[in-house]
Amino acid sequence: MIKTVAIQGVKGSFHHIVSQQFFDKTIDVSEYLTFDGVVDSIMNAKNDAAIMAIENSIAGSIIPNYALIDNFGLHIVGEHYLDIQHHLMALPNQTIEDIKEVYSHPMALLQCKAFFKKFPHIKLIEDKDTAEVAQRIQANQLKNVAAIASRLASELFQLQILSESIQTIKHNETRFFIVKTKNSEIPEIEINKASIKFELDHKRGSLATILNVLSDCKLNLTKIQSLPKIETPWKYAFFVDVTFDAYSDYIKAKSIMKIMAQDFKVLGEYKNARL
Amino acid sequence: MIKTVAIQGVKGSFHHIVSQQFFDKTIDVSEYLTFDGVVDSIMNAKNDAAIMAIENSIAGSIIPNYALIDNFGLHIVGEHYLDIQHHLMALPNQTIEDIKEVYSHPMALLQCKAFFKKFPHIKLIEDKDTAEVAQRIQANQLKNVAAIASRLASELFQLQILSESIQTIKHNETRFFIVKTKNSEIPEIEINKASIKFELDHKRGSLATILNVLSDCKLNLTKIQSLPKIETPWKYAFFVDVTFDAYSDYIKAKSIMKIMAQDFKVLGEYKNARL
Repeated sequence: MIKTVAIQGVKGSFHHIVSQQFFDKTIDVSEYLTFDGVVDSIMNAKNDAAIMAIENSIAGSIIPNYALIDNFGLHIVGEHYLDIQHHLMALPNQTIEDIKEVYSHPMALLQCKAFFKKFPHIKLIEDKDTAEVAQRIQANQLKNVAAIASRLASELFQLQILSESIQTIKHNETRFFIVKTKNSEIPEIEINKASIKFELDHKRGSLATILNVLSDCKLNLTKIQSLPKIETPWKYAFFVDVTFDAYSDYIKAKSIMKIMAQDFKVLGEYKNARL
Repeated sequence: MIKTVAIQGVKGSFHHIVSQQFFDKTIDVSEYLTFDGVVDSIMNAKNDAAIMAIENSIAGSIIPNYALIDNFGLHIVGEHYLDIQHHLMALPNQTIEDIKEVYSHPMALLQCKAFFKKFPHIKLIEDKDTAEVAQRIQANQLKNVAAIASRLASELFQLQILSESIQTIKHNETRFFIVKTKNSEIPEIEINKASIKFELDHKRGSLATILNVLSDCKLNLTKIQSLPKIETPWKYAFFVDVTFDAYSDYIKAKSIMKIMAQDFKVLGEYKNARL
């Protein structure tokens, strides 16, 4: 039973929104400034689960978060997709001409870069979190400063939205994982997606052979990424997501992959959020 | 003929080191604070080529740089691997106890995070570039401030190294692309690696089929990455690197992939730097 969830960022952050949508609005959230802190908290049983952004449709995978899941042996028990809308917000009665500095997370700044070309008087400054800046503007009554954050953040911290959806690419989705230290308690019948990891030597066609197995077992590949093995540069591990209709097909593919690939590992078995 | 090269960062940066190693120490470099600036400069023919970090063995691919190469139709004409060693440096006669703030690029801070756990009195602050901080410390004679940068930066800006190779993972390689607006002028006989991009519909086994073609044509896959298609979330394009012994094998595979995959595109054909 999941009662408390660790999130990266403060209330009003996109991780907070995901916790409300995946569970419900009454879920207890614990705020951490870093993903390391989030993972520490579930390893020490301070929280039952954690929410971690894993990829977005602009910048691709958040590799350090894959590394955390892999290194700490965490289990992915769910996924959630959130349409990220970035709004520019400041204390009430400020106009965009009043704003001299915008603080936000590097990813948010990157996604809104084009918008600020029209406002060369505004300095963009990297910060730890999107919503935490909104909180700070309210707490310290900061004038001439704006945040890029969610609508929830503007509501929680009583800021006025100066400009809506300022991200360059209007359709901007981020995928989140819900992770636990223990494996999924989802009934098999509901499991139709899995994230796996394996390593291969660089023999010609070794990856094609594995993908043929997946295909023969009626698994669909929805993501593949070769990743350098740390401390062994340019030896790659593969992170793969598969979807399937029958759990038995997946079990069959898993038993073959265990034999054919090196260091085969299931990162999680869960319900596809994209049906 | 390549006479001037655009680099991200200032002299003393890792991009500068790559320019010296790939060309020679006399190559003219133009400094840009962003990769957008680097690309602008070759699009406007201000420089003959650009150097762009594309992946490292810790954080994986630098996806926005793949997007720049793809969107501007640039051509990869070479690759270079650099063993990144981060050193902590400050004005002479400062000890690590004197240091209150360390400014560096977010990637460098991430890679050196563990080192600073022993020094909780030091505040880590994200900055635009590694070497530019070294330059600034010298220019403004900043005390109590350190940079994380290359040995070349410490030499150019007369800083003293307080601690050597402070990155957590000692073997830390970054791969760089040399890109131009025109295709490679490398003789065919020297070309044994290519970076390609294609899209596939999500039909089961479509990727396996393509990889079988590569394997049948005697191409080795050294990297694969599925990437979300911008503006069409969760439709993926594939970025693949292949190596080969015979250029004719690659030509054959290319002609088949053009027919089988959607939006097949060659990002570059060049000499493998990992022989």
